Amino acid sequence: MGNFKLTTVEEFEAATNRLLETGAKVGADAWQLRVKNQTPHCKFGEQGVCCRICSMGPCRITPKAPRGICGCDVHGIVARNYLKFTAGGSATHSDHGREICHTLYCSSPDGAYKVKDPEKLMKIAKEWGVETEGKDIYDLAHEVAVLGLEEYGKVFGTQRFLKRAPKHTQEIWEREEIAPRAIDREVSCSLHMTHMGCSSLPEALIRQSLRSGLSDGWGGSMAGTEFSDVLFGTPKPIDTEANLGVMEVENVNIVVHGHDPSLSEMICEYADDPEMIAYAKSKGAKGITVSGVCCTSNEVAMRRGIPMAGNFLQQENVVLTGACEAIVVDVQCIFPALGPLSKCFHTKFITTSPIAQMPDSEFIRFNAETAAENAKAIVKAAIDNFENRKPDLVYIPDMKQKATVGYSLEAIVKTLDGVTNSQVDELGTTKPLIECITSGVIRGAVAMVGCNNPKIRPDSAHIELMKKLIANDVIIVASGCSAQAAAKAGLMDKQAKDLCGAGLKRVCELADIPPVLHMGSCVDISRMMNLVAELAKDSGLNISQLPVVGCAPEWMSEKAVSIGNYVVATGIDTYLGVDPYVSGSDKVAELLTSGIRDWVEAAYTVEKDIDKLGDAMMARIEEKRAALGI
Amino acid sequence: MGNFKLTTVEEFEAATNRLLETGAKVGADAWQLRVKNQTPHCKFGEQGVCCRICSMGPCRITPKAPRGICGCDVHGIVARNYLKFTAGGSATHSDHGREICHTLYCSSPDGAYKVKDPEKLMKIAKEWGVETEGKDIYDLAHEVAVLGLEEYGKVFGTQRFLKRAPKHTQEIWEREEIAPRAIDREVSCSLHMTHMGCSSLPEALIRQSLRSGLSDGWGGSMAGTEFSDVLFGTPKPIDTEANLGVMEVENVNIVVHGHDPSLSEMICEYADDPEMIAYAKSKGAKGITVSGVCCTSNEVAMRRGIPMAGNFLQQENVVLTGACEAIVVDVQCIFPALGPLSKCFHTKFITTSPIAQMPDSEFIRFNAETAAENAKAIVKAAIDNFENRKPDLVYIPDMKQKATVGYSLEAIVKTLDGVTNSQVDELGTTKPLIECITSGVIRGAVAMVGCNNPKIRPDSAHIELMKKLIANDVIIVASGCSAQAAAKAGLMDKQAKDLCGAGLKRVCELADIPPVLHMGSCVDISRMMNLVAELAKDSGLNISQLPVVGCAPEWMSEKAVSIGNYVVATGIDTYLGVDPYVSGSDKVAELLTSGIRDWVEAAYTVEKDIDKLGDAMMARIEEKRAALGI
Repeated sequence: MGNFKLTTVEEFEAATNRLLETGAKVGADAWQLRVKNQTPHCKFGEQGVCCRICSMGPCRITPKAPRGICGCDVHGIVARNYLKFTAGGSATHSDHGREICHTLYCSSPDGAYKVKDPEKLMKIAKEWGVETEGKDIYDLAHEVAVLGLEEYGKVFGTQRFLKRAPKHTQEIWEREEIAPRAIDREVSCSLHMTHMGCSSLPEALIRQSLRSGLSDGWGGSMAGTEFSDVLFGTPKPIDTEANLGVMEVENVNIVVHGHDPSLSEMICEYADDPEMIAYAKSKGAKGITVSGVCCTSNEVAMRRGIPMAGNFLQQENVVLTGACEAIVVDVQCIFPALGPLSKCFHTKFITTSPIAQMPDSEFIRFNAETAAENAKAIVKAAIDNFENRKPDLVYIPDMKQKATVGYSLEAIVKTLDGVTNSQVDELGTTKPLIECITSGVIRGAVAMVGCNNPKIRPDSAHIELMKKLIANDVIIVASGCSAQAAAKAGLMDKQAKDLCGAGLKRVCELADIPPVLHMGSCVDISRMMNLVAELAKDSGLNISQLPVVGCAPEWMSEKAVSIGNYVVATGIDTYLGVDPYVSGSDKVAELLTSGIRDWVEAAYTVEKDIDKLGDAMMARIEEKRAALGI
Repeated sequence: MGNFKLTTVEEFEAATNRLLETGAKVGADAWQLRVKNQTPHCKFGEQGVCCRICSMGPCRITPKAPRGICGCDVHGIVARNYLKFTAGGSATHSDHGREICHTLYCSSPDGAYKVKDPEKLMKIAKEWGVETEGKDIYDLAHEVAVLGLEEYGKVFGTQRFLKRAPKHTQEIWEREEIAPRAIDREVSCSLHMTHMGCSSLPEALIRQSLRSGLSDGWGGSMAGTEFSDVLFGTPKPIDTEANLGVMEVENVNIVVHGHDPSLSEMICEYADDPEMIAYAKSKGAKGITVSGVCCTSNEVAMRRGIPMAGNFLQQENVVLTGACEAIVVDVQCIFPALGPLSKCFHTKFITTSPIAQMPDSEFIRFNAETAAENAKAIVKAAIDNFENRKPDLVYIPDMKQKATVGYSLEAIVKTLDGVTNSQVDELGTTKPLIECITSGVIRGAVAMVGCNNPKIRPDSAHIELMKKLIANDVIIVASGCSAQAAAKAGLMDKQAKDLCGAGLKRVCELADIPPVLHMGSCVDISRMMNLVAELAKDSGLNISQLPVVGCAPEWMSEKAVSIGNYVVATGIDTYLGVDPYVSGSDKVAELLTSGIRDWVEAAYTVEKDIDKLGDAMMARIEEKRAALGI
């Protein structure tokens, strides 16, 4: 107990530097080097004032050139770029959800994909008005899967999951005309609005950004989360480990990276197969270790306890260990750099999705229909590659932390049931948490999410903010690369309670939880939406009244902006550490940080000083408490 | 006859200069001035080597910085930008088609929208396997409209209209995995592939560009065309006039601009209303003149003979006449400049679509459900504005040409029937045209399409190429702003036959057609697809064997790139006068200009020297002829 100590960012960096030395030996490129080549960044692009949506340009707005050739002003250009950026993220997240629906559609009792959580399937079926009585569970799965797929393109109506939100929130969405219709339609509509000679009114463009975001968070992402749970099980608290030290030098190391559990679950399945383990042994390895990077890592950690090798800006490090036989990827956030980098080592860089095809990779096309054989071929390829290791290049930093992960909404509610007096209190609600907040034992909650970005010292913002917040009795729910930063640092070790204020510490002890709760991958921010919806319903408050905020201090992707939009549009103030390319327009910046509050009762704060960002969040939480008189 | 003379580009420019003098008086901005402010353009953007798809950047590729921070190389960046650009165009065109489907869904026997071409509706219904027997035509319309809407988001299968293509073409699409699924899905899929850390392999990205393009040309655009015909009538040859001189100084001038005939048809309807004309007279006008700009103009010219005030780069000119009471717009290619410009005059700039909202405009929301009252309010607002004219600012250039427009595929076939020996030949086919080509009386055909772009002297490329081609016995089908350039010049006057080679001249005389056939708006390039499909079927040749090419010498929009992709993917070589931001990658440039020929039997040629572009097209036509031995 007295031994518990967080791993510091300095220690992360020392390990990385040691690996970069290996890289230098073999002439490997690295993001640290590329950042140097790419800075300073183009100011026009950073401010969002560069327009390339037609071939009359590109146009750039300056005091001397205040309008593009078409006459669009800086506000229209910045807002169009923002909407396009959002649509990219919304399409991406949602397409992931579509793949999961498709996997569910392919599930069968004796196939590669099974229904592991029939209870959740039944719950969704009932929610969607599907008759469940006497129906075979796989027939039901296929029926619900098709309904899920139809959410992407249905001709009439809005997203089914919107009904999960409190009435007040649903009314806001209707009133503001941002209740999302078919998911793909919102994407197309966004691209139509941003086409040359369509919308240039910032209000219209930002409104559609919220709508497109909502189609992600309460549409595609939520489908991704819910149906992943149906297929692979709803996460429950489980112990794992995090950081590069989880790779094992004597084993065949397979690293799964990307987002869609349809691939990684199968890889895990076959890496556990006795036949495969025996095959690995026959090749001189002691066994097979699967570890994860990015959201794929979150998915398999939450459901299988698969260890987490690292997050976004650590993806090159797994190859630099010289001990990675295969890095197997599906979609999103995969450095194209892994192609040339893997060529400097024995590592096989295996791409699997038609959506993410890269040069210098081996493409083994993965289909839900042929998942088992595809996965087996991949695991076998990794094992066959073990003998190609170059021993003098092998170095795995001896650095990892324990983490308890798997706090789905269901798991949180169950945990809360455990501290409830079952004689007096209602079970299966978020009320015990509300009581902790109302009484002030916990001041509030922050959803920490998002990526890494070289513009912020990697992981430092995530970790420093979390430390600050828990010390001030603010509980954290985390997902994505933020969750992994926490795990690597040790903040998901239950012993991290000792870093909390007295109130939160007591809660962690009573509930036997770490102060930073791992809620999953980036699509799983939908779990957080369900959580706040439950909190609002259970407390009788509006979501915007809850002392809860969202924070993405190191975000980098289009998805992150889509997420930000749906979190804000759900009524949750959101704090960013990186500017979303909007500083060039005071009108757009004003809308996002203030104006949209009139529409959706929440707005953004952008603050590059991370310490101030933390202060701003705590101040906001206290402000909300004061307004409630608690 | 001897009086016939083309209007020259120099004359266009002289008129424009006179109008710019008016503009200068009132301090109006103009694209000619903004181009000066915006040039030289950013080289990174022009070459397509700037990446802004995540917030780690922007990154720019240079010899010293050959990869972005994620490690993506220049080929991946250029190809991603190209796919994003395509998706923007595909979404935009197709969303227009969706609106038309929705309008059809709102049609009723006593409503604003009626079924004017039930025969075409029946034909499509049969094509789509819808039972028509004994069905009320409006019930059928609604049923087919829903099927049309479902093409945007259906879960399974590919686009219904693909079946119109020759078998060989369909086989290519299947083989190359570019047969488009649901239209919106291809858009979302494109944005997913171009998200950070997804595809960076040019081949994959360009392949999806073709697929997304096909979802436009053989999906959304085709729906737009077909259902517009059902609603508003399939175009037939009709006489009209073109250029600013069509505006009438003593009348209330309403200019319709944009793309969707759902709006412009209703405006025309109410501008013809005796009550409205009387009202205009009561305000001191002699009557009401509706004229058009851009594709809206093409739509109402082809169906109603409404005169064409001008094309894309002439849109500011209509306001500069000082005689425009209202410029009424829906979606796409509308200069945001019209907002501030209209404020310098009495002109009302009326936006009507939630998709295209602009500052400094009056927003009168137009809905298919309330079309009649919306249109009436707009016409009335224009009439009320007549008295606000500033007479000393009024100057309408006395410049216009006669044009015969309305050559839908059906009209072309009917024209061909007229020159057929009905005792010997089959009626209702394209065979007479094939015979003209086979015999060499006509050497081939060029589809001239696309926009204006200040990078090319406006209209000059369209007009010079057409003159050159017809002089060499190449018949032209034209659409969009290219068609309007032709009409303004006089090339759609039947007398223009005198500018043709002997063979084409004879054909024009026999068939009583101009040498440049107006096939419609930019969505109507789908008519050209149907035409080549018929030519291939009627001749027994593959589309790629026909001596037919496409050309967009002055293109500027995302839509144009989407079009280019589906034209090429249909097997038709396509010639561009403006580079689609791909010069930064030799691999992408090579793929587009050569590599994709292995997939789809056609490719792009980019040539900024317009004369050489014409030579290249003629050489290609002769090459195809030689290959056929004709």
